[in-house]
Amino acid sequence: MEKINLAEKLSLFDEYWTPKIIADVNDFQVKLGKLKGEFVWHKHDTEDELFLVLKGTLTMCFRDRNVVLNEGECIVVPHGVEHLPSSEEEVHILFIEKAGTLNTGDAGGARTVAEPERI
Amino acid sequence: MEKINLAEKLSLFDEYWTPKIIADVNDFQVKLGKLKGEFVWHKHDTEDELFLVLKGTLTMCFRDRNVVLNEGECIVVPHGVEHLPSSEEEVHILFIEKAGTLNTGDAGGARTVAEPERI
Repeated sequence: MEKINLAEKLSLFDEYWTPKIIADVNDFQVKLGKLKGEFVWHKHDTEDELFLVLKGTLTMCFRDRNVVLNEGECIVVPHGVEHLPSSEEEVHILFIEKAGTLNTGDAGGARTVAEPERI
Repeated sequence: MEKINLAEKLSLFDEYWTPKIIADVNDFQVKLGKLKGEFVWHKHDTEDELFLVLKGTLTMCFRDRNVVLNEGECIVVPHGVEHLPSSEEEVHILFIEKAGTLNTGDAGGARTVAEPERI
């Protein structure tokens, strides 16, 4: 039961697209990530995923439209919905999702982080 | 799949100790609350509870010590652990917890919000 400082945790890594686990809440996890550029189209068959922007601007692309999220804004991507996170500049994200949710969902591939680091 | 602006949601209510649901992520919920003063000692038999401070300072009292949380800091209170949230000044909190988690846990009483409002 130690407090967790988000800025401090974010200072511990620089690499993009590698979510880090900072907290477990029952079978859910809270992760932090730094994103820049374009990810891969994917969906999660059973897991919903919440993205909260802590810094910067994230564009969440869906097949039929894009949603632009600024600091202090979040979105829930329901399971089964294809999405592609994208950002021109570095953006810091807090993720809320079930433990075991893969960053690349059903797409797999080289950018999959099978076992996110705990920081 | 609309974006959720935390500041906008927080502007929709003034009352203390009445968490509002802003998002569902599978069987978890994200809530916002405004707290001021002292709550009641309680625990949750099965649900962990994450408190993230969005504004102000929250003191999380445990039976053996207190943890002071400032903006950008969070803490997970594991299930079974007695706690009492307290703050001298108004504090804004984002909660992450399983759907159905009662604000007063096992303590019940007048301050229980049985069915939190969705905003």
